[in-house]
Amino acid sequence: MSDLHLLTASEAARLIREGRITSKELVTSCLAQIDAREPTVQAWHYLDRAQALAQAEAADAAHKAGKPHGALHGVPVGVKDVFDTRDMPTENGCALHAGRTPRHDAAAVALLREAGAVILGKTVTAELAYYTPGKTRNPHDPARTPGGSSSGSAAAVAAGMVPLALGTQTNGSTIRPAAFCGVYGYKPTHGLISRRHCLRLSRTLDHVGIFARTLEDIAIAGEALMRFDDAPAAGEDEDMRPAAPAPLARVLAEEPPVEPKLAFVKSPVWDQAEEVTKEAFAELVEALGSKAEPVELPEFFAEAWPAHKAIMEADIAHNLRREFERGRERLSPAMQQAIERGRAVTAKDYLAAQALARDLAAEIDDITFAYDAILTPAAAGPAPVGTATGNAAFCTLWTLTGVPAVSLPLLADEKGMPMGVQLVARRGDDARLLRTARWLAGLLTGGAAL
Amino acid sequence: MSDLHLLTASEAARLIREGRITSKELVTSCLAQIDAREPTVQAWHYLDRAQALAQAEAADAAHKAGKPHGALHGVPVGVKDVFDTRDMPTENGCALHAGRTPRHDAAAVALLREAGAVILGKTVTAELAYYTPGKTRNPHDPARTPGGSSSGSAAAVAAGMVPLALGTQTNGSTIRPAAFCGVYGYKPTHGLISRRHCLRLSRTLDHVGIFARTLEDIAIAGEALMRFDDAPAAGEDEDMRPAAPAPLARVLAEEPPVEPKLAFVKSPVWDQAEEVTKEAFAELVEALGSKAEPVELPEFFAEAWPAHKAIMEADIAHNLRREFERGRERLSPAMQQAIERGRAVTAKDYLAAQALARDLAAEIDDITFAYDAILTPAAAGPAPVGTATGNAAFCTLWTLTGVPAVSLPLLADEKGMPMGVQLVARRGDDARLLRTARWLAGLLTGGAAL
Repeated sequence: MSDLHLLTASEAARLIREGRITSKELVTSCLAQIDAREPTVQAWHYLDRAQALAQAEAADAAHKAGKPHGALHGVPVGVKDVFDTRDMPTENGCALHAGRTPRHDAAAVALLREAGAVILGKTVTAELAYYTPGKTRNPHDPARTPGGSSSGSAAAVAAGMVPLALGTQTNGSTIRPAAFCGVYGYKPTHGLISRRHCLRLSRTLDHVGIFARTLEDIAIAGEALMRFDDAPAAGEDEDMRPAAPAPLARVLAEEPPVEPKLAFVKSPVWDQAEEVTKEAFAELVEALGSKAEPVELPEFFAEAWPAHKAIMEADIAHNLRREFERGRERLSPAMQQAIERGRAVTAKDYLAAQALARDLAAEIDDITFAYDAILTPAAAGPAPVGTATGNAAFCTLWTLTGVPAVSLPLLADEKGMPMGVQLVARRGDDARLLRTARWLAGLLTGGAAL
Repeated sequence: MSDLHLLTASEAARLIREGRITSKELVTSCLAQIDAREPTVQAWHYLDRAQALAQAEAADAAHKAGKPHGALHGVPVGVKDVFDTRDMPTENGCALHAGRTPRHDAAAVALLREAGAVILGKTVTAELAYYTPGKTRNPHDPARTPGGSSSGSAAAVAAGMVPLALGTQTNGSTIRPAAFCGVYGYKPTHGLISRRHCLRLSRTLDHVGIFARTLEDIAIAGEALMRFDDAPAAGEDEDMRPAAPAPLARVLAEEPPVEPKLAFVKSPVWDQAEEVTKEAFAELVEALGSKAEPVELPEFFAEAWPAHKAIMEADIAHNLRREFERGRERLSPAMQQAIERGRAVTAKDYLAAQALARDLAAEIDDITFAYDAILTPAAAGPAPVGTATGNAAFCTLWTLTGVPAVSLPLLADEKGMPMGVQLVARRGDDARLLRTARWLAGLLTGGAAL
C-alpha cells in the first residue's frame, strides 16, 4: 500500500467508498511522501500530522457508521495559507500575520470539508499572495522556482504529497506555478467560487484556483467548490451570481459532440515568450493543423496589462492599508513599493481600467464565438533558476477579464522541465473548457490521433 | 369625464380593464390638464400629443381585441429624460446631447410598455441628472423649485398631468422633489430595478425612482419594474441580483401583523434642518408616542457624506469623461467643477468610501433589527424660493447605502407648502417599508388613531 499517495483524488475517493482502503492509510502514505520530499521541496507552512490523522480517522468512522459520503470523502487536500482555517493558523505568508488564528473556515475550506476532504495542512504562499517568494522549491529541480504565489500547493501536488490543493490567482498565481511544476491548474470564471474569508487583494482580480494531477480531479473539486454564497457580509464576496451548479465532471466525461476548434492566440506579450516556448507552440500548432487557427487580438488588448497593474496596485493599497499603516517595515520592499504606487492611482484611471476589463471580456465573448477555446502559453518559459516567482504576463489578460483558464502539463523543454499549455474560454464556459482540455490532452499524449 | 386625469394609476387601469373608460379618454384628459398647467409648471421636455394618443389608441384596440392586460394597461406615465426611449429623443438635460435619438428603450421603459403603459412624454431633468436645474417650477408655487434632478416627473404628478412618473436618484433626486412637490416618491433597494440604457452617473449610487399620488400606485409600478435583468452588457447594470419578485402590492394591502415601530433618526445632518422641519418632527414624534423611538446613529455615520461626495464625483468624472473631453465648455460650471474634483480623487479614497458604504449598510441592518422603518425628514425644509434644486443632505446616507426609502406627503408648513416624511428600511425590505408607510399615512391622515 506504499503508493497510495500517487492515487488521484477520484480514485482514492472511490476506493475509500468501496471500503478497499481507509482514509487513514491514504493520509499515512501522503505523510510518508511528505517526510521523504519535504526537506527538499518545502511545500508546507503548517502541517500537524496528528491533526491530519484525526480527520482521516473521523472520515473512516463516518464510513463505518454508514454515513453519506461527499465526493472527496477521506481525501487529503493541501490549502494555500491564505484561506482561513478555524483549526489551523493562517498567516498569509506575512510576518505581520504570524500567529493569526481565524475563528472561521474560508467558504472554500468549508465546502471541501463538506465534501468529506481531510484538510492536510497549509501550503506555502508568497508574501500576501503577491510577489516575494516563500521557501518552496520546484520538485523537478530544487534550483528552480515552483512559481508563485501558490507555490506550496503546486509543488505539493507535483511531488505526490497530496492529490489536490487550493490556490488563488490575482495575476498568474495558479496557472504559472501549475505550468512550472507540471500539474493541472485551473482558474474558474470569476465569481464561481466564493472568496469569503480568503485573503483579499482585489475584489476584481482575486480568483480561487485548483491544482491536481488529472482533469477529472480538477472537475470534481471544482464542482464541490462552486456553491453560491448567498449572504456575504461587506467586504467578503460580492461578485457571486446564483447559477445552476456547473456539471464539470459530467461534461468532462463526454466526448465533444463535434471536433473542437482552438484559436491560437499569441497575445500582445508574445515577445516575452522564450525561444523554447515559441518553438514548442509552433510545433504544437503545426501538429494540430486545422484544429487550431491563429487569431490576432485587436490592438486595444495591449491596454490590459497597465489596466491590470492599476487595479491590482490600487486594490492592494486599499485592502492591505492596515498592514501598511501599522507595520510597513515588516513588509517586503516589493510589497511596500506596490502599495505606494497603488496609493497614487487616481479613481479616474482605476475606473477606466475597470471599464476596460469589462469591454475586453465582452470582446473575448465575441472572439471565442467560433472556437471551443483559446490556445496560448501558460508562462513565458519553463521554471527559471532561482526563487523569484517568474513572469505572469501570459496570465494577466485572462485574470483581468475573469475568464476561465486551465494549464495543461503537456510540454517539456530539453532538460525535461515541464511547460504549460494554457486553454482559455469565455466567461461561464468552464465545463466545455475542461472537456476541450481533456480532448487536447488525449490528442497530445495519445499521440496517434495527431 | 373631465377629471379623468385625477384618477390614480390603479383606478384608471381598473376602469380601462372594465371597459368603463378608454385609454384615449384618459390620455386626452391628461393632455388637457397639461395644456392648462404646463405654461406655469413646465414639467415636459418632450411631448408629442399625436404620439401619445396613438399609443392610447393601440391600448384601446388591444383591449377590444381581448388581448391580455398588463397592470398599467392604457395608463399614461411620464419618463424623466435620462431614460432612453426608442421613439422619443433622450437629451439628458445636456446641451451636448441635443438631438440624441437612442435606438433602444431603457429597461425600465421597456417594462412599463410591457405592463401596458402609455409613455406620455419625457420630463425635465436637471443637467445630466446632477445639479443645474431645468425650467420646471413647483406646482404649489411657481416662485419655488420643484426640487431636482427629477424635477419634471415630480411636478407632473403633483400637477395632475399624469398619475405616475419615473425618476432617478444618485443623491436626493427622487425623494427631495417628491417632498417639495407633495407627492409620494420611492427609491427602491439598490439593484432591484435595472438601469440599463439609463444615463449613468454612478454604478454605486444611481437608483431608478418612482413618483405617484398614492402608495398603491407606487407598489404597482414598483412590481412592474422589478424584473431581473440577466444579461447586462459591460457598463450597463451589473448590480442586479435575481430575486423572487417583491410582492409590493399584496403586502401593501395587508394590515401589519403587529403594530409597527419606527426608529426616529435625526441623522448627523440634523443641524441643516430648518426650524419648521424640527418643529414638525417634534410634534410628529410626540404624537406617535411609543410607536416611535429616538435612535442615535453611531458617530462614524458622519463619514457617509464625504464618502458619497468622493464616489459621486469620481464616478461622474469617469462616466462623463467623453462629455468633459469633447465639450466641457457646454457643461454648466457646477458640472465642470464636479468633474474636475472627481478627476483628483484617488483610488485609495474611492475604495475606502466604497468599503464604508458597505459597512454602513450592514450597520443599518443591525440598527433596524428592532424596527419596521426609520423615520426621518425627506428634506431640510419645504421647497425654497428660486430654481436651485435644494439640499439633498437628508437623502445622501440612504442613497450611499442603497437602502429603500419613501417620501410621504404628510406635512405642510404654515403657507401650505408640502413637506415630506421619509421612511427608510434595510436593504430588501421594500414591501414591508411600503406597508409601514401606508400604516403611518393612515394614522396621520385618519387622525383618530393617533
